[in-house]
Amino acid sequence: MNGAESVVRTLVAAGIEVCFTNPGTSEMHFVAALDRVPGIRPVLGLFEGVVAGAADGYGRMAERPAATLLHLGPGLGNALANLHNARRARTPIVNLVGEHATYHRACDPPLAMDVEAAARTVSCWVRVCEDPRHVGADTAEAIAAATAPPGGIATLILPADVAWSTGTRPGVPAPREMPRAPSGSVIDAAARALRSGEPAALLLSGGALHADALESAARIAAASGARLLCDTFVPRLARGAGRARVDSVPYFAEAAVAALAPLRHVVLVGTKPPVAFFAYPGKPSHLLPEGCAVHTLATPAEDARAALEALCDVLGARGAAPVREARSSPSLPSGPLHPASAGQALAALLPEGAIVVDEAITAAAGLLPATRGAAPHDWLSLMGGAIGQGMPAATGAALACPGRKVVCLEGDGSAMYTIQSLWTQAREGLDVVNVILANRRYAILQVELARVGALAPGQTPGARAADMLEIGRPDLDFVALARGHGVPGTRSTNAEDFGKQLAAALAEPGPHLIEAVF
Amino acid sequence: MNGAESVVRTLVAAGIEVCFTNPGTSEMHFVAALDRVPGIRPVLGLFEGVVAGAADGYGRMAERPAATLLHLGPGLGNALANLHNARRARTPIVNLVGEHATYHRACDPPLAMDVEAAARTVSCWVRVCEDPRHVGADTAEAIAAATAPPGGIATLILPADVAWSTGTRPGVPAPREMPRAPSGSVIDAAARALRSGEPAALLLSGGALHADALESAARIAAASGARLLCDTFVPRLARGAGRARVDSVPYFAEAAVAALAPLRHVVLVGTKPPVAFFAYPGKPSHLLPEGCAVHTLATPAEDARAALEALCDVLGARGAAPVREARSSPSLPSGPLHPASAGQALAALLPEGAIVVDEAITAAAGLLPATRGAAPHDWLSLMGGAIGQGMPAATGAALACPGRKVVCLEGDGSAMYTIQSLWTQAREGLDVVNVILANRRYAILQVELARVGALAPGQTPGARAADMLEIGRPDLDFVALARGHGVPGTRSTNAEDFGKQLAAALAEPGPHLIEAVF
Repeated sequence: MNGAESVVRTLVAAGIEVCFTNPGTSEMHFVAALDRVPGIRPVLGLFEGVVAGAADGYGRMAERPAATLLHLGPGLGNALANLHNARRARTPIVNLVGEHATYHRACDPPLAMDVEAAARTVSCWVRVCEDPRHVGADTAEAIAAATAPPGGIATLILPADVAWSTGTRPGVPAPREMPRAPSGSVIDAAARALRSGEPAALLLSGGALHADALESAARIAAASGARLLCDTFVPRLARGAGRARVDSVPYFAEAAVAALAPLRHVVLVGTKPPVAFFAYPGKPSHLLPEGCAVHTLATPAEDARAALEALCDVLGARGAAPVREARSSPSLPSGPLHPASAGQALAALLPEGAIVVDEAITAAAGLLPATRGAAPHDWLSLMGGAIGQGMPAATGAALACPGRKVVCLEGDGSAMYTIQSLWTQAREGLDVVNVILANRRYAILQVELARVGALAPGQTPGARAADMLEIGRPDLDFVALARGHGVPGTRSTNAEDFGKQLAAALAEPGPHLIEAVF
Repeated sequence: MNGAESVVRTLVAAGIEVCFTNPGTSEMHFVAALDRVPGIRPVLGLFEGVVAGAADGYGRMAERPAATLLHLGPGLGNALANLHNARRARTPIVNLVGEHATYHRACDPPLAMDVEAAARTVSCWVRVCEDPRHVGADTAEAIAAATAPPGGIATLILPADVAWSTGTRPGVPAPREMPRAPSGSVIDAAARALRSGEPAALLLSGGALHADALESAARIAAASGARLLCDTFVPRLARGAGRARVDSVPYFAEAAVAALAPLRHVVLVGTKPPVAFFAYPGKPSHLLPEGCAVHTLATPAEDARAALEALCDVLGARGAAPVREARSSPSLPSGPLHPASAGQALAALLPEGAIVVDEAITAAAGLLPATRGAAPHDWLSLMGGAIGQGMPAATGAALACPGRKVVCLEGDGSAMYTIQSLWTQAREGLDVVNVILANRRYAILQVELARVGALAPGQTPGARAADMLEIGRPDLDFVALARGHGVPGTRSTNAEDFGKQLAAALAEPGPHLIEAVF
């Protein structure tokens, strides 16, 4: 058995079912092995940003890793932005990167690059497998590293001669390491803080925002009077009618500071103390008020659900009645199309169990509040700030959850980073409705240009600056782009059309695109 | 004056006229500075792969650097593959990467990444400017590093607080360092080798393939009986009717070994001894025969033109009559469309002074021989093997040479990495004809799958392997993709239509796309 087959058999033995890939010459033995070994499904992306983002979306929904298979340093480079996002989401990914044969690297052929250095920027674990005898064990170790709590990217770099060497053996995957519950003293400390009578909040992310854990957190909040908060961006939030209401920390630093100012205690569950997304002249980086005590109930690597249940018990909060989102049953909107009316249509039409992938950027300010009372759904946001993650993540989420509808809310600027996702959606017949929120500008940057002080108060940007922040001239035609990738598309310029098109797209199997122009 | 403006004024003082960019929040002060400071043209790309590839194409044709402006680690990551290609082409690029404010990095905000480590994988020079007082001098040093022979990528990482700090000063760019001519003893050694009577070749790349230097090399070959060879892939080759005939080292290792086997002397001009692009089981990495003496006339950092002129003089070869390409004046083709008939149409229609960007991969085998006798043109090839460079490079080449037509010969698989280039071509009104050679597969990988021994002799790939090497199901519609980006497109399925469409596209200003299906 050659090295490539030993790697693939080790993946299968660990229960890894999908390999997102864009292979090259140095990965041909893996292509042959993926062909030969049953139990793992190769999914081709036309660009590595799609591959990596799909693995992120898949891992967040499946709660187990996909494998990725990339071609040398440049393939890894193309995947780097979405691997960065996955790292920030703590998504487990077994990232295989082909490399030149060990003896060939010294020749410095054209494709040679420092793969290991690039991999370290996004990985929790990196190894170059130099010896075919270790290929199985190295793969098992990579799987263990990716799935060890809190989850991360384990990059195994595989020289071509290791892949083609025969006489290798698959590795034996270790049982998956599960997150541990925090100690009783940690639970008690959190309980004391919440009983102090001083203003307090629970701040959640990661597993704390999955349905069961969130329910416990909400009961704790109801019983203790603490506020229930989550990070601005979260890997996955159980949301919608009947679910606990949880408020996000505002995006802009000054709004976040104002929202958090009254707090004297923050209990962290699966996250770190909040920091500003960007620095601004004269504005703080750390968002909690001075003197606010920080209590870590569960680190991102610990079992948030068990921690919240234990805290619930200590506080006697099991019977508390949390604030829940009421079911909103809006009519379909009419009139102008804007994020809020698009959100109204979404609230009316979103099927139960839908997965919403949110890379709507500025448009999310309208879409999020409008969909609080929609049918229960999961909401996935961009974790690392590297735009171009939404449509790939929607692709991976749909592969992880074949029975559920996926709606991708995508800014037009962000869509253009990894638009090739549409082709993989078409090829795999995935139930994804891609809604492109087309304001024809990098609207967030138009806001930020003034906020960072690059313009004097009241000053408007000059023509050349304006041009760098707008993506009209020419307008992108997303309906044509969809057709080009094999996906049916429509365009709506008013709310009524948008509602009709969204209803039709959700009713039909397979991918769709709606360009929502506003 | 703030740090961003000092950087921009230093670029302008050094004669840098174009900044390819995809900025984000941390670059807003640069956007404002690019708006304010005359003399530099910002060019927006919808994706950083376009930005980096355009800077490569620009630098190869302009022979001076463009600046790039990227957003943090992920922006650099998206640019990494095409920066890798530019590194292999030794293209000068002043690569500016925005970074979080110095004090903000320690907070580990979502977009934080090890920018410096990623930059080192592609750069000849990297600096994080930590002190606003040094920003001008650091920029001047970056420009000097990028333009020092042989040319490379100098990455200056600029924290946001350095960009917004006031009281800074522009730097004073040093005069550009020019390549030095090799010593007389080196010239004499090459002359002795060429006079030895043993089989010899000149192997050229870099500046040795520009028109004047190539003419000297051809005279040397004619006078000495040496073969005139160039690397398989070259940054820029002066080619076409009346130009010297130079043969490329074959791509596949066994063909290259056979072609080079008779040689006893190789004189290198602007390149290194040839190595195989990939390793294959049982095949060599080094392509020159054992016992072949290697004589370096000029390293990539030395003045190839001066070296060749000096060698020409020593050999008394100024009056020699080199083998030149005869003008072929083929009629427009009819019948089936394939790379050779597409090449025939190109040979008939290519205007004098055209720039041909070649990322045709397997199709190049038909296009290259067919166009040997076309009107004189420059031919740019993919240097680092990271596909997705062609259309961005064509974009940058057109910006560097506004009076010249650019033809981009692009594989369909490769086109899908950086298809967003079309939008920049449309926005800037660039005279680029993008010919998509649509065989609907990664044809090179279908060849390589067998060649690397991943299949037994005569074995055909299974369905899942075949699926990873084909990009039909669904077919991409490049005419729709072009329209989506604001570029007119046509499709041809026979040679006659292709010729008509190519003639029409070359006759009209602005970008066009032709999907050549075969």
